[in-house]
Amino acid sequence: MNVLIIFAHPEPNSLNGVMKDLAAKTLRDNGHEVKISDLYRMRFKAVLDENDFSQRQNAEQFNPMMEQVNAVGTGSLSQDIKDEVEKMKWADMIIFQFPVWWSSPPAILKGWFDRVFLPGVVHNIAEGKMYDTGLLKGKKAMLSFTTGAPKEVYSSEGPHGDLNDIFKFITHNILEVTGLEIIPSIGIYGPAMTSKEHVKEELEKFKERINSL
Amino acid sequence: MNVLIIFAHPEPNSLNGVMKDLAAKTLRDNGHEVKISDLYRMRFKAVLDENDFSQRQNAEQFNPMMEQVNAVGTGSLSQDIKDEVEKMKWADMIIFQFPVWWSSPPAILKGWFDRVFLPGVVHNIAEGKMYDTGLLKGKKAMLSFTTGAPKEVYSSEGPHGDLNDIFKFITHNILEVTGLEIIPSIGIYGPAMTSKEHVKEELEKFKERINSL
Repeated sequence: MNVLIIFAHPEPNSLNGVMKDLAAKTLRDNGHEVKISDLYRMRFKAVLDENDFSQRQNAEQFNPMMEQVNAVGTGSLSQDIKDEVEKMKWADMIIFQFPVWWSSPPAILKGWFDRVFLPGVVHNIAEGKMYDTGLLKGKKAMLSFTTGAPKEVYSSEGPHGDLNDIFKFITHNILEVTGLEIIPSIGIYGPAMTSKEHVKEELEKFKERINSL
Repeated sequence: MNVLIIFAHPEPNSLNGVMKDLAAKTLRDNGHEVKISDLYRMRFKAVLDENDFSQRQNAEQFNPMMEQVNAVGTGSLSQDIKDEVEKMKWADMIIFQFPVWWSSPPAILKGWFDRVFLPGVVHNIAEGKMYDTGLLKGKKAMLSFTTGAPKEVYSSEGPHGDLNDIFKFITHNILEVTGLEIIPSIGIYGPAMTSKEHVKEELEKFKERINSL
């Protein structure tokens, strides 16, 4: 299958970078095709603004959603967005690899959703096409992450709560809206607060999960 | 009291802009001091990266959290972050005014948290200072927003679920971690899909809420 990895860590030699490389290698070894959007290295523009739209539908007042609908209709999306849309259409599966900052993805990854998850491309709300009838139906998505805090802090009894529950704002409210099927997330918790041995074991488990895809 | 409004919509004449202006005027009329961080107009840098750190603790490998701890310790934060930290310290209350994009704030606002909510400024995890002992204890915060979808879609029986539940990833996992006391959120749902009269009524309710602060 075709796998797109959206990578959102500023440091290539971080544990996130290691996970991204391990996932890509493992998938390729298993005969899959892999493309990577390395958002930091691409200097991906995080902020949805007027500069995304060369042909304004309304030049007086900027309404982001209306301009997105118009730009998709006229094919006047900016090139960086077109490129991401093409990769997304190509992919059978999208893996999001990111560090958890404030129980959520870095701004650059939120910006990828703001700019690339376009009306008419991932859903068509006017025609009621979302969730089971979302336009990305048939594709799969998985979150893969690291946290600063250890697992206990992110347990259902811990102060932050269960991270898989917290992440419903992504898995349900962003990904499932488009029809994407969610594959259970995989994360390495608090790598900076544990032994190198333990991180190595976690990477082995990670590789097994990637192998099972 | 001192109120800081963090405003995260690209269009000053949007309904979000109207809400921001109405909140500022109402608060000032009531004798409060108001400062506004208009993130789009400030061209606020959304992406936490190496450029935030002039004096690297580790020049070889970029670890964002470690560099934040170091920069707070040495006072070497970049000026735009220092300015936001000053405003935050000055404030007794912070109001976040934003459009809901994908059931969450725009990337530029997530970036504000990534870059301004610093270890040693909003919490001190090493010393266990978070939640009830968070460093912003004594201050208050409120989310104020607009949505594209109507209220039914964001109800507990609706496809997206109750937005106040979804927003726990902000109110609990970002704001309460720092000790901030949460004031119930206020939102205008689906203004583009309703009558001007209804929006006017919603703005009246909004003004009443601001008056009650």
